[in-house]
Amino acid sequence: MTNKCSRDFQRQNTVVSVKNVRIGSSEQTFWCGPCSIESETQIEETAAFLSSWGVQILRGGAFKPRTSPYSFQGLGERGLVLLALAGEKYGMVTVSEVMDTADIPLVARYVDILQIGARNMHNFALLRKVGATGKPVVLKRGLAATIEEFLLASEYILLEENPNLILCERGIRTFEQYTRNTLDLSCVALIKKLSHLPIIADLSHSLGRTDIMLPMARAALACGVDGLMCEVHPNPAKALSDGTQSLSFEQFARFISGLLPLMHFLDAQNASQAETELALPVTI
Amino acid sequence: MTNKCSRDFQRQNTVVSVKNVRIGSSEQTFWCGPCSIESETQIEETAAFLSSWGVQILRGGAFKPRTSPYSFQGLGERGLVLLALAGEKYGMVTVSEVMDTADIPLVARYVDILQIGARNMHNFALLRKVGATGKPVVLKRGLAATIEEFLLASEYILLEENPNLILCERGIRTFEQYTRNTLDLSCVALIKKLSHLPIIADLSHSLGRTDIMLPMARAALACGVDGLMCEVHPNPAKALSDGTQSLSFEQFARFISGLLPLMHFLDAQNASQAETELALPVTI
Amino acid sequence: MTNKCSRDFQRQNTVVSVKNVRIGSSEQTFWCGPCSIESETQIEETAAFLSSWGVQILRGGAFKPRTSPYSFQGLGERGLVLLALAGEKYGMVTVSEVMDTADIPLVARYVDILQIGARNMHNFALLRKVGATGKPVVLKRGLAATIEEFLLASEYILLEENPNLILCERGIRTFEQYTRNTLDLSCVALIKKLSHLPIIADLSHSLGRTDIMLPMARAALACGVDGLMCEVHPNPAKALSDGTQSLSFEQFARFISGLLPLMHFLDAQNASQAETELALPVTI
Amino acid sequence: MTNKCSRDFQRQNTVVSVKNVRIGSSEQTFWCGPCSIESETQIEETAAFLSSWGVQILRGGAFKPRTSPYSFQGLGERGLVLLALAGEKYGMVTVSEVMDTADIPLVARYVDILQIGARNMHNFALLRKVGATGKPVVLKRGLAATIEEFLLASEYILLEENPNLILCERGIRTFEQYTRNTLDLSCVALIKKLSHLPIIADLSHSLGRTDIMLPMARAALACGVDGLMCEVHPNPAKALSDGTQSLSFEQFARFISGLLPLMHFLDAQNASQAETELALPVTI
Repeated sequence: MTNKCSRDFQRQNTVVSVKNVRIGSSEQTFWCGPCSIESETQIEETAAFLSSWGVQILRGGAFKPRTSPYSFQGLGERGLVLLALAGEKYGMVTVSEVMDTADIPLVARYVDILQIGARNMHNFALLRKVGATGKPVVLKRGLAATIEEFLLASEYILLEENPNLILCERGIRTFEQYTRNTLDLSCVALIKKLSHLPIIADLSHSLGRTDIMLPMARAALACGVDGLMCEVHPNPAKALSDGTQSLSFEQFARFISGLLPLMHFLDAQNASQAETELALPVTI
Repeated sequence: MTNKCSRDFQRQNTVVSVKNVRIGSSEQTFWCGPCSIESETQIEETAAFLSSWGVQILRGGAFKPRTSPYSFQGLGERGLVLLALAGEKYGMVTVSEVMDTADIPLVARYVDILQIGARNMHNFALLRKVGATGKPVVLKRGLAATIEEFLLASEYILLEENPNLILCERGIRTFEQYTRNTLDLSCVALIKKLSHLPIIADLSHSLGRTDIMLPMARAALACGVDGLMCEVHPNPAKALSDGTQSLSFEQFARFISGLLPLMHFLDAQNASQAETELALPVTI
Repeated sequence: MTNKCSRDFQRQNTVVSVKNVRIGSSEQTFWCGPCSIESETQIEETAAFLSSWGVQILRGGAFKPRTSPYSFQGLGERGLVLLALAGEKYGMVTVSEVMDTADIPLVARYVDILQIGARNMHNFALLRKVGATGKPVVLKRGLAATIEEFLLASEYILLEENPNLILCERGIRTFEQYTRNTLDLSCVALIKKLSHLPIIADLSHSLGRTDIMLPMARAALACGVDGLMCEVHPNPAKALSDGTQSLSFEQFARFISGLLPLMHFLDAQNASQAETELALPVTI
Repeated sequence: MTNKCSRDFQRQNTVVSVKNVRIGSSEQTFWCGPCSIESETQIEETAAFLSSWGVQILRGGAFKPRTSPYSFQGLGERGLVLLALAGEKYGMVTVSEVMDTADIPLVARYVDILQIGARNMHNFALLRKVGATGKPVVLKRGLAATIEEFLLASEYILLEENPNLILCERGIRTFEQYTRNTLDLSCVALIKKLSHLPIIADLSHSLGRTDIMLPMARAALACGVDGLMCEVHPNPAKALSDGTQSLSFEQFARFISGLLPLMHFLDAQNASQAETELALPVTI
């Protein structure tokens, strides 16, 4: 039997369409916003800023998976309301994490894309039930999951007849201390080869620092990623979570400006390839 | 603020009493049974055999977290019924995994101890809600969780005013190929020092093989573990899951026989220590 | 005290000049050839092929660090002679590994660049003594070395007043099974930031497979690497070592053709940047 | 072909005899002393203290493999002289590390057992040449070496017709932060099963802390280790290297006292087993 995530099952790339955004198509997607939704002003300002730079997908956590129960746990439903309002006002697609099967209806009511976090990649009940909603889902690779396990986790969602699935490489746990995790771009390259599913890279959680975000974004784009996730906050120094890995507005402006030439080059190259090769990954 | 799991919060060892079993006391506990409950005959025979050897805790999976959705997923409620019947017949305490917050009431109705598997150690909603039941819980260390994260996960349960918590070291993921995971006994030694909670070691999932189970059980006991978990199956070669790491009845008999002398020695040593040292870990 | 490898010690990028090749300058370098030198025909044909594609650096092992003593250990001095002849005939710079301090004079007599393999990154006596030769050295990151340890290893060479040092990221050991190691491009990005030393990426040893070599090469180039190492063999299926990760001539031709457009784009971008920014890494 | 390290090649345990010490026999060996030899007084006092507790093997580094070239590198030959004098005065067997093939004759002149450190486990030239001396060798497992690689490294020494080899598990590198490395006792259990070679455990380098040394030593003994290595220093707070993981004399006295009852128990058990089972590991 062929797994549904496999390129042997479906040769053409899956494209997940949400509103006017097409994830997995030749166009790059940016998934940006604060780690946690903290206030109306914070998410509203961030959405205004990001949409002015053409970012189409607004991320923000309302239910936060925190290692310690004493850390900020998110605003819950109020956070979802604020995210939905900001998304609507600026015409952005919204994404937020769901951690408990009991919360799926609530989160699904407010957001466009349901996120399964790295800590829940092996939470199979959650995978099945978000699959059953039929809504677009972004599934992050587990902290120490192999690529094979990552693909098999995606299978739990696809089996619920939900084809709207996007994968997300977010770094794996190693002994390295200079980065929060080790961004494994071979995972991106292999999944483009083995699967028809779109895959994006989460720069903030993999790197845990902002100073090498630009070269790593360039690397991710060059190896064929379908989108980049990064945390952006009006005032990273005062963020309630993940401040050290969040870009300020000024940093984001420089980040995206630094990426644009490469993106234009890759778009042009993809466009010429697409005619003859159906956008399949090239195997040498 | 002092974490509730910390020995600074509570100096004396926590002892979790379930029926006539006292986990965390000087007496060792054995947690045995098949990976999955497969049939009435299988669990009944296993319980009969294990209780004849004095094993007091019967384990068996009804909801199985499987990497692939195409693997056997467990018998569900019927499995729980069979486990409860076998436990009752042979006077054994029962333990089974719960994977979804929605299943907590169901699993809690049938079993004595709720298990949170390694893949769900970071499933914080599940931790809170099993905590809220007040029932005894055994929490396994995540596949790549640090000891600090393991202790903080326990805090999610303790914060629900549920003191009936047992930790379980089950091996961490490394590059080693000869074992399924790497059993980290330093985790046991450190948790005995840092926390008042009982901790057991899961030999089957850490080793993934039976041929070194005896020396590793001896090591775990000698470093102060409060119990040993291992999979026992009437016919490992035909097990629906984890056959290669399950002991047959004959192997288990040799295993426990090989452990008894060391257990008697440790019991005697603990007994003499307990009078003078209140069973606290000795710091050199 | 500031480490000599640090960008605080030397702000400008180090450029290592060997014959007409300038490693660490804006021009990309390719380090190609068989894992082991096996025969005159093999290395001669490979050099002829590679130089026809503009490859300037010819690699080949004469002393092979093999996990098992029963595996092919290399041709020794005869291999070095063959490598030197091929390099001279086709005007290529040669590189080969030295494993024992006793062999340094021998290897240094024949090759242009001395290689320290991953297994010897912590062989401090070897580091000091290759440093003392003053010859160009390429130092590979250890199998499980942190970036900090990698930089400190480089310090052993630099302290011998040998500035002709090139670093090489070759993947780190993780639990992942689909690749031989995990290529850590954050290491490249961080070292470009923290150090003035050139750094290249070894695609063959990190990936252990050829089918994702093109996207990973693109990623490495986009994040700022100064060169790419990959194994090329006239007949990978019959290679005495590392056949599964070696490119055939036909595969290499497709590989390099697939890279050229991106390389031209990056060259153009670097050229325009260089005027204003002195080729320093951009920090956002 | 059967590897020489394999139990299929030699069924009986290898016993390495050095002076009056028999490593790999039923008697436990302790390998203690400072990380680095710092002065005549330091090594002399330590030897006096250790021999008074019956410790038979005196360790001390003269050539130190240090991550940074700016850290203390050892006293070199003078350190070896001091170690040899202290060993002779107190009738102890001496062991010290050799890092460079060029130093083998020098180190071999002064010490009884040559140590290959973890960072050199893959330094195959060094393995061969220490093997060729015929002197007893202790080989440490590499920082991220698999058990298979560890055994194959031992093969390089055995192939030189040197049967006087002892293995040493010293922890592997993982993501865990509470310990310096993760002591992998499954490695001990597996090697006792797969190989006839003696294996000891280095508690200091694996744990990197002293407060759990006693329970981990108990675990190592219970799983069948042939000896324990730990660092002891007259004044750990002033040690030139590894102070935080070294035991003071007072701590060592409590450490060994805490181990004695278990050691007597294990001796008695081994003695009764030995008559009937030839001291082979028991497979359940």
